[in-house]
Amino acid sequence: MLYLHIIIFTFLISSCSVPIEYSDPLPSWNDGNTKSSIIEFVNDVTDQNSSNYIKVSERIAVFDNDGTLWTEQPIYFQIQFVIDRIKEMAKDRPEWKEKQPYKAVLENDIKTLMSSGSEAIGELFVESHTGMSTTEFYKIGSDWIKKAKHPKFDRPFTDLIFQPMLELMKYLRENGFKTYIVSGGGQTFIRLFAEEVYGIPPEQVIGTLFKTELKEIDNKPEIVRLPEVFLFDDKDIKPVAIEKFIGRIPTMAFGNSDGDLQMLQYTQSGKGKRFMGLVHHTDEEREYAYDRDSHIGHLDKAWDEAIENNWIMIDMKNDWKVIYPFKLNK
Amino acid sequence: MLYLHIIIFTFLISSCSVPIEYSDPLPSWNDGNTKSSIIEFVNDVTDQNSSNYIKVSERIAVFDNDGTLWTEQPIYFQIQFVIDRIKEMAKDRPEWKEKQPYKAVLENDIKTLMSSGSEAIGELFVESHTGMSTTEFYKIGSDWIKKAKHPKFDRPFTDLIFQPMLELMKYLRENGFKTYIVSGGGQTFIRLFAEEVYGIPPEQVIGTLFKTELKEIDNKPEIVRLPEVFLFDDKDIKPVAIEKFIGRIPTMAFGNSDGDLQMLQYTQSGKGKRFMGLVHHTDEEREYAYDRDSHIGHLDKAWDEAIENNWIMIDMKNDWKVIYPFKLNK
Repeated sequence: MLYLHIIIFTFLISSCSVPIEYSDPLPSWNDGNTKSSIIEFVNDVTDQNSSNYIKVSERIAVFDNDGTLWTEQPIYFQIQFVIDRIKEMAKDRPEWKEKQPYKAVLENDIKTLMSSGSEAIGELFVESHTGMSTTEFYKIGSDWIKKAKHPKFDRPFTDLIFQPMLELMKYLRENGFKTYIVSGGGQTFIRLFAEEVYGIPPEQVIGTLFKTELKEIDNKPEIVRLPEVFLFDDKDIKPVAIEKFIGRIPTMAFGNSDGDLQMLQYTQSGKGKRFMGLVHHTDEEREYAYDRDSHIGHLDKAWDEAIENNWIMIDMKNDWKVIYPFKLNK
Repeated sequence: MLYLHIIIFTFLISSCSVPIEYSDPLPSWNDGNTKSSIIEFVNDVTDQNSSNYIKVSERIAVFDNDGTLWTEQPIYFQIQFVIDRIKEMAKDRPEWKEKQPYKAVLENDIKTLMSSGSEAIGELFVESHTGMSTTEFYKIGSDWIKKAKHPKFDRPFTDLIFQPMLELMKYLRENGFKTYIVSGGGQTFIRLFAEEVYGIPPEQVIGTLFKTELKEIDNKPEIVRLPEVFLFDDKDIKPVAIEKFIGRIPTMAFGNSDGDLQMLQYTQSGKGKRFMGLVHHTDEEREYAYDRDSHIGHLDKAWDEAIENNWIMIDMKNDWKVIYPFKLNK
C-alpha cells in the first residue's frame, strides 16, 4: 500500500499543483539592477511571510502612457490625430485657411503650431475631440488609428508600444496587480486601443476628460462630448484623479517626465513599501534620446527627485533588449 | 493495474476537479419570476454556446446604493452623518444657533431642515464634508459609522444592508461580473464601508464627487476636499459618470427610484441582452413601504418605464425571505 500511496501522491503533485514557473517573466529586460529591483519588489510584496506583504485588493500599479508605454516623439501621437482630423474637417471650414492655429496645421507648419501656445492647441483639441457622441468619437478614432502611420518608423502608432513594459504589466497582473493608465492624454483616445494593445480595460484608463452630457439621439441615450475640459490629468491632477478613480495610493508608479512627478511622490507617500520608476529615453538609435532639454517628455525635476529618493531609472538603451514588439525575434 | 488506475482516477476526480455547485446562489430570494429572471439571465449571458454570450471583461453590473443596497428611510443615512457632524462642529460655531439651516439641525427639527431647499442642504454637506484632507475625512467618517445608530432599528447603519442584494452581488462576481456602486451619495462616504460590507473595492465606487486638490501637509502630499461639487452623480449624470469611470454600457443595472431612471435606460440602450431591475419598497413591517408619494426614494416615472419595458420589479415583501443579514437564522 505504501507503493500505491507514493504513486498516487506523485500523480497528484504532478497533476494538481500549480506549475512553478522558473521562466523569466521579463525576457526583454537585460539582467541588472533595474530588472532585479522590479522582481525583488514584486516577490517581497506578494510574499505572505514578508513584513512588506500587500493584499491582492490593494495591489495597484499606475502607468503614464506617452513616453512610458509607447513612443511620444516627434510629437505626441494624439497631436498627430488632432492634425489629421483638423485637415479632414477643414473641407467644410474654408475660413481655417487664413486663421491660426488652423493655418499652421493645414500648411504642415509644426514649428509654428507647437509654439502657438497651450490655448491655441487646446482649441484644436476641442474642435477635433468634441461636439459628437462618444460612439461617433470611437468611430472616427478607430478609423484614424487603423490608417495613420508614424513618420519615422512608417508603422501604425499602436506598433510603437514598448515590449518590456508589456511584459512588466503582464507580470504584475499575474501577481495580482491591477494595472491602470494615468495619462495626460485623452481618456477616450487611449481607450481606443488600450484593451487590445496593453490588455488594459476601459475602466482602468484614466486620462484627460472633457465635459459630457446625456442626450437622446435617434431615440437612444448617448453621451455627448462638450467643448470644455473637465479634468486635465497632468502633474498635480494625476494624484487627484487617482484618488477619484481608484481611491487608494498606488503600490507602484511608472512615468517618464516631470508630468509624472506628483504621481510618483503621491505613490511614495503611501504606507509600506512602494515602487517608483522612470523610463529614461536614452536610445537615439532604436527610439529617441531626450530628457532635460526636451519640450515633449521634459524630464528634469523628476530626475532630480529620482536620484534623491532612489527611484528606479529605467535606461532604455541599457535595460531593454528590444524596444518594440515588431522587433522581437529579428 | 486496472484497479490501481480506477483508484487513481477516482482520487483525481475528487481531489482536482472544480466542485460543481448545485446549491442555491440566492437563498434569501423566494422562488418566483424575479429570482428565475435573474438566474436565467446570468446563465444565458455566461453560456459560451448562447447567442447572448458576453465576454468576462464586458460583464459589468451597476447598483445604486441608497434604497437599493441598504435602507434609505427615514432619511438618507448620509444626511444623518451631516446632522451629527454639524452638531459636533457647532461647539466652535456659536453663530449657528441662530442661523438656518444650522438652527434646524441643532434643534433636531428635521421637518424644517428637509424643507429648507437643496441649496441650504448643500451648504450643510459642504460644511461637513469638505475643508479637510481625504485622510481626515476617512477618520471622521469611520468614527461616526462605528458609533451612529439607526433610529428605528437601533443598530449601526451598516447592519441595514439588504441580504438578498449581498447574495446577488456575490453571485454575479462569481460569474465574472464586476460589481459597481453608482450612487448619488458621496463617493468617499460610501468608500468608508463598501469594501467591508459589500465586497466592493474603492475603485468600483462611483458617487457624488467634491472638487479636490493636491496639497503638501506635514511634508506629505494629501488630497484636500474643496467646497464645490465636482460631479453630482444622480439622474442624467449617472450615465455620464458610468462612461467616465467604466467606459462601457453596463450589462445589468439595479436601482430603486427615479434617480436611477437614466442609468437603467442607458443600460437598456446597449447592444445585446441587458438586465434592468428596480427594488420596490413594499414591506412596511420588515423595512418601509413607499414609492410614488415619497420624497426620499421617489419611484414614479421609473416604475412606469419598468412596466413599459418589462424591467424586473423586485418586490421586497414577496421576493425576499429576509431583509437584513442580522435577521438570518432567526
